[in-house]
Amino acid sequence: MVDGCLTGMETTTAEGRMVVPARTGRGVRVAAGRRVSVVDLEGGQVGDVFAFTADMSEHLSAAHTRAATDRLFPAQGRHFVTDRRRPILALVSDTSPGRHDMLIPACDPARYASLGAEPGHPSCAENLHRALAELGTASPLTPQPVNVFMHIPVDGDELRWLPATTRPGDAITFQAVVDCVFVVSACPQDLVDINGGDPTPLAIDLLPAD
Amino acid sequence: MVDGCLTGMETTTAEGRMVVPARTGRGVRVAAGRRVSVVDLEGGQVGDVFAFTADMSEHLSAAHTRAATDRLFPAQGRHFVTDRRRPILALVSDTSPGRHDMLIPACDPARYASLGAEPGHPSCAENLHRALAELGTASPLTPQPVNVFMHIPVDGDELRWLPATTRPGDAITFQAVVDCVFVVSACPQDLVDINGGDPTPLAIDLLPAD
Repeated sequence: MVDGCLTGMETTTAEGRMVVPARTGRGVRVAAGRRVSVVDLEGGQVGDVFAFTADMSEHLSAAHTRAATDRLFPAQGRHFVTDRRRPILALVSDTSPGRHDMLIPACDPARYASLGAEPGHPSCAENLHRALAELGTASPLTPQPVNVFMHIPVDGDELRWLPATTRPGDAITFQAVVDCVFVVSACPQDLVDINGGDPTPLAIDLLPAD
Repeated sequence: MVDGCLTGMETTTAEGRMVVPARTGRGVRVAAGRRVSVVDLEGGQVGDVFAFTADMSEHLSAAHTRAATDRLFPAQGRHFVTDRRRPILALVSDTSPGRHDMLIPACDPARYASLGAEPGHPSCAENLHRALAELGTASPLTPQPVNVFMHIPVDGDELRWLPATTRPGDAITFQAVVDCVFVVSACPQDLVDINGGDPTPLAIDLLPAD
């Protein structure tokens, strides 16, 4: 694994680590069959993960994945599916405590306005679109992400927003089912306690081909 | 209340009932402040409810509503919000057993193909777009609906798909916060047991102004 050898313009052949600085987003193109990890470098940090088919015509859909898996949250060995119900990623391994959210949308300027933040607070929605632009592509949508390491326990019908329980170096690993665009936002939320009040960086590790 | 006095082209002034025949969808424009009910005429029937702002620039978002209410499912007295986190509908009353889903996407041709149905099986997604066309409008999106009367209990992390428990005449009533387009699909699902295997009609009651 080589630190910092990937940029947003790299595609599927280079392996290595792309750091996602705190409060920002980064994307990478991942070829079908390749594995990609999201690493919580310092621990306690949520990552919003988005995936699109290479032609951007379909996106990973949390709602359709819930219907496909009959589960609220991601499950190891299961697929994430698109809005056309086709598998796009598999969850192949996970060294974290295993808490990942599929209920909550990406934070956005409206969310920060409602929390009383000054205009200009970074957000996962904006990070997504910036990362896509850096890859030379775009989407009119902000799909509901898979929020890795985000701890949203469900108690009856009620949701709670708790700090991520990840330790430094914890990683969740996906395998691409089809060629895809994979984006991670290191969630800049510092007004709700999901990142322990202190957003920190993540990393995207594109793993060697088998 | 006058049976059958509304068509898809009516707007906000007429009160009355629009029947939504089994397996089809219907829409109505609802002015801010007006109340509208979805009635399960025969019982045991799921309705997929979609709402858009009058200019179609925002839609009711199940994900953003979960984040706004900290709940998995709709709650009486609470608002449903749009993808821009603005209130669009309030849940003002409910004579049903109170089971309504906000986790499952609309059924669509891909869903029926995966269940082995012949091509051409009706779906809530297609019913939405047909109902919008009958209202002279359109959306590029099929938002995740609010599935009224749909019984999806959550057991730990697992979802189950059970028959609707509604009795004939049970109704859920919304109040429009802003002028909106309101669409109901009488879910045509007959291959999963949510409608007891026998899809039946619903009705949309546009209630008198206060």
